[in-house]
Amino acid sequence: MSAGSIILSEGLGTMVLILFGAGVVANVLLTRTNADGDTASWVLITLGWGFAVFAGASIADASGGAINPAVTLGSAISGGTPWSQVPWYLIGQFLGAFVGAVLAWLVYKAQFDANEDNSGTLNIFSTNPPIKSPVWNVVTEIIATFALVLFLLVAPYGDSPAIYACAAAVVVGIGQSLGGPTGYAINPARDLGPRIAYAVLPIRGKGKPDWGYSWVPVVAPLIGATLAALVAMIAPVKTGG
Amino acid sequence: MSAGSIILSEGLGTMVLILFGAGVVANVLLTRTNADGDTASWVLITLGWGFAVFAGASIADASGGAINPAVTLGSAISGGTPWSQVPWYLIGQFLGAFVGAVLAWLVYKAQFDANEDNSGTLNIFSTNPPIKSPVWNVVTEIIATFALVLFLLVAPYGDSPAIYACAAAVVVGIGQSLGGPTGYAINPARDLGPRIAYAVLPIRGKGKPDWGYSWVPVVAPLIGATLAALVAMIAPVKTGG
Amino acid sequence: MSAGSIILSEGLGTMVLILFGAGVVANVLLTRTNADGDTASWVLITLGWGFAVFAGASIADASGGAINPAVTLGSAISGGTPWSQVPWYLIGQFLGAFVGAVLAWLVYKAQFDANEDNSGTLNIFSTNPPIKSPVWNVVTEIIATFALVLFLLVAPYGDSPAIYACAAAVVVGIGQSLGGPTGYAINPARDLGPRIAYAVLPIRGKGKPDWGYSWVPVVAPLIGATLAALVAMIAPVKTGG
Amino acid sequence: MSAGSIILSEGLGTMVLILFGAGVVANVLLTRTNADGDTASWVLITLGWGFAVFAGASIADASGGAINPAVTLGSAISGGTPWSQVPWYLIGQFLGAFVGAVLAWLVYKAQFDANEDNSGTLNIFSTNPPIKSPVWNVVTEIIATFALVLFLLVAPYGDSPAIYACAAAVVVGIGQSLGGPTGYAINPARDLGPRIAYAVLPIRGKGKPDWGYSWVPVVAPLIGATLAALVAMIAPVKTGG
Repeated sequence: MSAGSIILSEGLGTMVLILFGAGVVANVLLTRTNADGDTASWVLITLGWGFAVFAGASIADASGGAINPAVTLGSAISGGTPWSQVPWYLIGQFLGAFVGAVLAWLVYKAQFDANEDNSGTLNIFSTNPPIKSPVWNVVTEIIATFALVLFLLVAPYGDSPAIYACAAAVVVGIGQSLGGPTGYAINPARDLGPRIAYAVLPIRGKGKPDWGYSWVPVVAPLIGATLAALVAMIAPVKTGG
Repeated sequence: MSAGSIILSEGLGTMVLILFGAGVVANVLLTRTNADGDTASWVLITLGWGFAVFAGASIADASGGAINPAVTLGSAISGGTPWSQVPWYLIGQFLGAFVGAVLAWLVYKAQFDANEDNSGTLNIFSTNPPIKSPVWNVVTEIIATFALVLFLLVAPYGDSPAIYACAAAVVVGIGQSLGGPTGYAINPARDLGPRIAYAVLPIRGKGKPDWGYSWVPVVAPLIGATLAALVAMIAPVKTGG
Repeated sequence: MSAGSIILSEGLGTMVLILFGAGVVANVLLTRTNADGDTASWVLITLGWGFAVFAGASIADASGGAINPAVTLGSAISGGTPWSQVPWYLIGQFLGAFVGAVLAWLVYKAQFDANEDNSGTLNIFSTNPPIKSPVWNVVTEIIATFALVLFLLVAPYGDSPAIYACAAAVVVGIGQSLGGPTGYAINPARDLGPRIAYAVLPIRGKGKPDWGYSWVPVVAPLIGATLAALVAMIAPVKTGG
Repeated sequence: MSAGSIILSEGLGTMVLILFGAGVVANVLLTRTNADGDTASWVLITLGWGFAVFAGASIADASGGAINPAVTLGSAISGGTPWSQVPWYLIGQFLGAFVGAVLAWLVYKAQFDANEDNSGTLNIFSTNPPIKSPVWNVVTEIIATFALVLFLLVAPYGDSPAIYACAAAVVVGIGQSLGGPTGYAINPARDLGPRIAYAVLPIRGKGKPDWGYSWVPVVAPLIGATLAALVAMIAPVKTGG
């Protein structure tokens, strides 16, 4: 597959991932939206991110639907994705994440303009732990990404389009179960791309992009994916049919 | 496929789409219903519309389950639906949407009759943005419909009945993520058909059908579908099996 | 298939249907349960009934997973189920529904015993419209059952086990969208079997089984299924693969 | 399959099961998490445990994805799992459950540390009935496990990877419908493994592990599985295609 095709495929997929993902948080956090007042906020956010994964990964089917540098890394270590292609995956994923964040902002432009206090709107774009603790935030993101990548490498859905729905289901599960402490980045592009977008977008009264935390959701998922790839090498897999 | 079969298939499918879709909003908005008091209102409405898409599109399987003029337009631009058949699709979709709205009203007839204030019941039938802003409402509907049609044209489910469940999942995602500012029409028939029904149905103390806004959920989805069809032409698609 | 096998298959399936279905309402309505205090009550009840359909119909796979006299009637009119077998289906369904209701009561026995006021517990077993209006309650049940049976007869899932998940999804949709006015019996056995169980079970301080309403959820679903079978005869269906 | 492979496969799967399952309850019960304040708590917990089953069972695909001694017992009685392998299944399941509980604690370490009152945190790890009544708690767990194992033995999904999603759906259903009185252990390893972890983990101000109740979620599921295996022997199953 050509570099351009990988960048375009992963770019479109990650764009839709972030459009939906940032969108659902905007729907919950901003006022004068239709989700405003729904008290099942974490159910809504985790389901919304799940559909984001499903739509985004499906759209990136031509390139395998990774839409996540940690997944690409795990796949490369396991021999699925050629290392020579990894740079094109990452470029597509980060570019797509940035564009998706801009689109989500456009969708909610009237709400951002009408919102009295935009100081907390970083949460729409990037993760932000309720308790900031670098060590434990890293641990949480490592374990959560480990679970995702282990599933992708070991579970028996890899050869069919069903993998995208299965991955989406597991991401909903990770959000509901392990997303409490850090907001489950589990994807460097998902966090850094929109964080950069937040830094540059003209949102009146916006808060700071919190660069001090930004390394956690980049580094920890890559560690988690590496660990998962190592464990997957020894995990039993069904053979012969 | 004959014109009559297309009209009947799309008509039955869109009828069920609107019966379920208007129904779930009625269940939430009207009093003395079983959903009255459920505080997960946007979860309920978006899930309900998702099952509406699944049931309606499945019932319209004979004609491809479009049940949406924007989807039909995107398919025609991409060479899927012959242009000569497009009029029959649209007739079926608008007629079905009108009949579905009437059926939803019949289902909730006792509730409409008992309701003290029916002035806000347009929201059961058609979309109504929390912040009315023609430009940004159009932008929102364009982006939301773009995501839907891009998914339908690029994702790898097109040849199996699984496409209806996949489309339903993406519509739930669009609702949860992008439905905040406009109520996600993303379908001209879904909005205009029930709006006409609302204008003619004998609902005591009903509000106005808001014709001034009615062009937005018709025009914007068609623009979004056109853009998606153009992007889909350059999007990489898996080949060779 | 032998009469005994049909009765056993439909009986086990309908038993699980009602065990789960009555169970989720008990979980919501009774106090000192784990769902007590969850404010997404209608989301919970409709999802719970959906899993009830999925589990029950799957368990009754040997006999086609009807677990509903209205579905059996629609299938018989359409030529799917031989009329000579219909009695065995109905016997299995009503017996299974009764046993399932008893099991649900056993599951929540400690809660029934501890509950201060059991006068409203009929709602755990049978449907009970928020606004009692025989005409409109009948209309609601006819339309809701019509949608279910039309889906089962027209949608393209009939030959695979996926039909049970698809039917479950549509039943969730019917509950969320059309269940507001009557509680969506859409199944004579689902309503009458547990109503009889409620009448005979030793629940301290229980209410009356409301025999005056009991004909609605029996008669209306049968009318709806008949109408659906008639419409399905003229509905276009994909041919030739 | 070798003893080591069974232990590793079941161990990894059960580890992920408990990581997700304990995680979602921690997310709901602890403060300063993202799910804190979501009022659809039982919806969230039951969905979270469902994704836990899906992810865990899929990861244990090589060994059939049992991740539950009750399921292994039902399978052994039915002739699916050789009795000689049962010990390896149990070892993997209990070890995995213990490790998964430790991982869940690590994920929420900062929250446990910040929590003012950890006396109720046993509920994150093990089941705890709202009304303690040995007899009826046993009855509830027997019936709930009976439904799960009957489904697994009779429903028509056994030969495809779809079984894991189907089992997950039924476990969500059991949670929503039958989980009210006891918290639906339906799995001895799921309850005892994390209970032991709770007893040894250094959680400041933690409560007692309630050994007095610990036999119920071990013994009752095994009885329920046995009854289900017996009923499955007489349940009709589709034959000949």
